[in-house]
Amino acid sequence: MEIFIESIGKLINEFSKLPGVGKKTAQRYAYKIIDMTPSEANAFAEAILGVKRKVRYCKVCGNFTEEDTCGICKTRDKSVICVVKEPKDVAAIEKLHEFKGVYHVLHGTIDPMAGVGPNDIRIRELLARLQENEVKEVIVATNPDVSGDATALYLARLIKPLGVTVTRLAHGIPIGSEIEYTDDVTLTRAFVERNRI
Amino acid sequence: MEIFIESIGKLINEFSKLPGVGKKTAQRYAYKIIDMTPSEANAFAEAILGVKRKVRYCKVCGNFTEEDTCGICKTRDKSVICVVKEPKDVAAIEKLHEFKGVYHVLHGTIDPMAGVGPNDIRIRELLARLQENEVKEVIVATNPDVSGDATALYLARLIKPLGVTVTRLAHGIPIGSEIEYTDDVTLTRAFVERNRI
Repeated sequence: MEIFIESIGKLINEFSKLPGVGKKTAQRYAYKIIDMTPSEANAFAEAILGVKRKVRYCKVCGNFTEEDTCGICKTRDKSVICVVKEPKDVAAIEKLHEFKGVYHVLHGTIDPMAGVGPNDIRIRELLARLQENEVKEVIVATNPDVSGDATALYLARLIKPLGVTVTRLAHGIPIGSEIEYTDDVTLTRAFVERNRI
Repeated sequence: MEIFIESIGKLINEFSKLPGVGKKTAQRYAYKIIDMTPSEANAFAEAILGVKRKVRYCKVCGNFTEEDTCGICKTRDKSVICVVKEPKDVAAIEKLHEFKGVYHVLHGTIDPMAGVGPNDIRIRELLARLQENEVKEVIVATNPDVSGDATALYLARLIKPLGVTVTRLAHGIPIGSEIEYTDDVTLTRAFVERNRI
């Protein structure tokens, strides 16, 4: 006999699909749902369905939006574009309340090993934006890994000839950490990208 | 401006209600839902609604069921009853595939500090079962804390006069752990409940 009745087993199975959630955690989540009032559980299910129904990509920047164009593209300084790999990177940067420009979400980075070339990500759309708007600077904020580095280099070669400044986020020792415990790759990068004081 | 658009913000908020889930984890879960196909997301929402629609308590033992009487009460040896605090304890014991009897879920334990007395949990229902069926043994499997201990003692006093054996799960050093690292309360209990070899 199954340990869980069918409906509970199904819900545990669904929760197990979430990233980093094992059987045990999925069980805890399922028990929480069982303990909810019907209207609380309804709101939860409705939130899941609502996201699938309403969320789409901004036709300008590729970020999540519920309209044609996202709120950032509508209201902010279009002369600086920050290029990121995924919509979740936009959220991470927006949290800082520091950047006042607009974004461009590539939906991937160049990765020949995985069969992802320049035409498979939203580079064409980025070039079109550079032609349409007066852009002063493109900040490449791809991840500091092989694929992110390759994409940054590729974009720089493509965009610099257009007379647009291309910059990349600084890499180095994280604030609050210690040199002794910084990994070799990061430490080497910190040397290479050292700044005058 | 909000960092997340409304529908995503709502979903993050719902996921944050799950036990042990902070904003960051809730975000990861929400992104996973966004990445799902509509039919996958539908199945997830449906699993949540299904649990609320179908799950109720077994009228005999108080465990979760989708029918009037649960599968365990219908098919198993009624002469041994294992008394637990909550339905999730039934799942934990069933996982062992060791216990062949039936359960009785109290839905709480006696806790005067929290205003929970013997009449607030399903003790009356347990006594009724002892009168209706030929029960040989009641195994009290409440947690080894003040409230669980008090409930076990209360049940023993009530049930023993009926000529039914009352036992409690053994407490002591967990298998695989070391005496040096066993907490004082557990170690003391292991001494008190020591067995002849």
